[in-house]
Amino acid sequence: MKSILSAFILLSGLCIQTAQGQGTPKVAEDFKPSSVNQADKQFPQVNSQRRVRASIAAPNATKVQLDLGGVKYDMVKDANGVWTGESDPQDEGFHYYQLNVDGASVPDPGTLYFYGAGRWGSGIEIPSADQEFFALKNVPHGLVSENIYFSKLTNAFRRCFIYTPPGYHENAKNRYPVLYLQHGSFEDETGWASQGKANLILDNLIAAKQATPMIIVMDNGYAFAPQSKEAVAKKERPESVFEQVLVTEVIPMVDGKFRTLADRDHRAIAGLSMGANQTMRIMMNHLDTFSHYGGFSGTANYPSSDALDASTFLDGKYKDGNALNKKIKLFWLGLGTKEPVPFPKSIGAFKTMLDQQGIKYVYYESPETAHEWLTWRRCLYQFAGKLFK
Amino acid sequence: MKSILSAFILLSGLCIQTAQGQGTPKVAEDFKPSSVNQADKQFPQVNSQRRVRASIAAPNATKVQLDLGGVKYDMVKDANGVWTGESDPQDEGFHYYQLNVDGASVPDPGTLYFYGAGRWGSGIEIPSADQEFFALKNVPHGLVSENIYFSKLTNAFRRCFIYTPPGYHENAKNRYPVLYLQHGSFEDETGWASQGKANLILDNLIAAKQATPMIIVMDNGYAFAPQSKEAVAKKERPESVFEQVLVTEVIPMVDGKFRTLADRDHRAIAGLSMGANQTMRIMMNHLDTFSHYGGFSGTANYPSSDALDASTFLDGKYKDGNALNKKIKLFWLGLGTKEPVPFPKSIGAFKTMLDQQGIKYVYYESPETAHEWLTWRRCLYQFAGKLFK
Repeated sequence: MKSILSAFILLSGLCIQTAQGQGTPKVAEDFKPSSVNQADKQFPQVNSQRRVRASIAAPNATKVQLDLGGVKYDMVKDANGVWTGESDPQDEGFHYYQLNVDGASVPDPGTLYFYGAGRWGSGIEIPSADQEFFALKNVPHGLVSENIYFSKLTNAFRRCFIYTPPGYHENAKNRYPVLYLQHGSFEDETGWASQGKANLILDNLIAAKQATPMIIVMDNGYAFAPQSKEAVAKKERPESVFEQVLVTEVIPMVDGKFRTLADRDHRAIAGLSMGANQTMRIMMNHLDTFSHYGGFSGTANYPSSDALDASTFLDGKYKDGNALNKKIKLFWLGLGTKEPVPFPKSIGAFKTMLDQQGIKYVYYESPETAHEWLTWRRCLYQFAGKLFK
Repeated sequence: MKSILSAFILLSGLCIQTAQGQGTPKVAEDFKPSSVNQADKQFPQVNSQRRVRASIAAPNATKVQLDLGGVKYDMVKDANGVWTGESDPQDEGFHYYQLNVDGASVPDPGTLYFYGAGRWGSGIEIPSADQEFFALKNVPHGLVSENIYFSKLTNAFRRCFIYTPPGYHENAKNRYPVLYLQHGSFEDETGWASQGKANLILDNLIAAKQATPMIIVMDNGYAFAPQSKEAVAKKERPESVFEQVLVTEVIPMVDGKFRTLADRDHRAIAGLSMGANQTMRIMMNHLDTFSHYGGFSGTANYPSSDALDASTFLDGKYKDGNALNKKIKLFWLGLGTKEPVPFPKSIGAFKTMLDQQGIKYVYYESPETAHEWLTWRRCLYQFAGKLFK
């Protein structure tokens, strides 16, 4: 009986409450430090029920909370002034969180820090059953390089991270296809190679000969035209020029600096959430530049779930399904099964339009994940394996 | 009078107290956000007196402090529950710090995070008069690449960051000399290219034709041989194998992966504090591997200030001054003028030994800086300009 119950717990921590018929289910005492903790830091921890246990010394505080997944969990103080508390079971994968000490929202001093939710802050990793695909293994590793550039279009320094696959530096003559890969809203160019594990996913795929060695370029999707002082004073909304930055500044820079295969057949573009929306528009505006597209948890009709009219949506760019099927080598969409409103219906409306136009696409659903990074790691894993083949 | 007083304030903030004859000197209200804040974060700020002003919302806290430079400054709560407070004037340059909320030591949510003092935490940048040498400018920029490798000697995954100079990727035939550059105690492989600004210092030097374009390899100085379970249980001190990792694992990997000039004439090694101690020993044990040495705020006799006997110190490796002068192309030492005990006297004792042995060296003092990163940025700037010439 015990082993069956254990399996049940692993399937869904929330079921424990029903199984035990208790308001406050028993917390399994098998917590282990999170894999994204700072070296030698014992907290936060995660247990087999996928609960998070946080702990912080705050001897003079009157209330300390673990703020995770939209819920603030009260922590309890011990005789030494150390506060400890647990969350409800969480989805597998990576989540942003913070601590709250007497009203101050602060990063947990125990974790590494990640950019998301518009700030650098704490993250927690709930082990997933399929975590091998993004694990750090003893296989050849590519490099992730910080590339600083001055952008005339934004009149600002910008930065992209560039993954070069294993062998790139040793084999100085090979040329490689390129995937341009974008983050979501309130995230930045650091996300994909940090919490996204893009480099490790590709290292593992390439080692298993399941992906074509490729370069990945991860830029920042926030790029705005300079504003006049008057416009700033009036708080006018700045004009996004990300599409122009990517197409006229980043791609020529990458093709000039790295050994790329610099043609549309060897260029893909993908993004998550806001990045899916952005890259879908860029793809359709530049079909002579890109041949493969990936949209993870997002489409260009966001946030609408209304039926789409192919003759007018995106200026009718999806009207001629036959032509698109010939032009686009891969049209790939992905979504987590637990994603919130409006993603399922919005992406559903987009898919319906593709079906109506007879446009071929691949559709993937990430089991039991929401609008979070495990969905996008899985999307990249599935998508990258189909690129440039 | 006002302008003279202003100049006086700029020279030494501490003098204000005397000049004004007050216990609580007046705080100049010309604070600006620190350059290492997160995007759009208004706090922390720095004023012309080099004071730091921190601010955090903590409506239910009873005591909030700014913990900077070994002093905890009480902050004051306003009607909205926002606490604000200022430090005494600080040295120019970069400092680690934290906030304390009712006894909880936490990172300031306003800053970027840096690894130092054994943890990822907040940093503040006090503008320095000479900051142009490490500023981000519109010059060609090199890349900083994260390189993951499996180390057999430690039986662990390790990581080094590698700076490749401007032109490295575009000119696929050039080969470059290599500087191996190490961090200090309780820091790691991220320090030099983050708070150390090593990449920007080299970009600027190379653009001004004041440095030979070179590769810089920044590894982690903490590397230990695997221990038996018994040894771990007994809390035995693990054996450092950093020297072996660097010489037998990292250098061959770098020479295999990058277009290096793979001989001693084109290989330098340098480090700061603990890293100076480590690299000085490695240099002297491997004079056939390295030809240039830089010790920033540290020497291998640390922490002793006793007179050194060249016939016995480091097994007599400094005994034959003539031979060393022929073998070592650059022997460079640097120190901040405000460094604490034991650094000035310890390094002084080492220099005295070099003088006694007739060993040629360059000695540099960083004005008005202590055992902190502005000292080491300046050291790298001075040192790099003399390498491989």
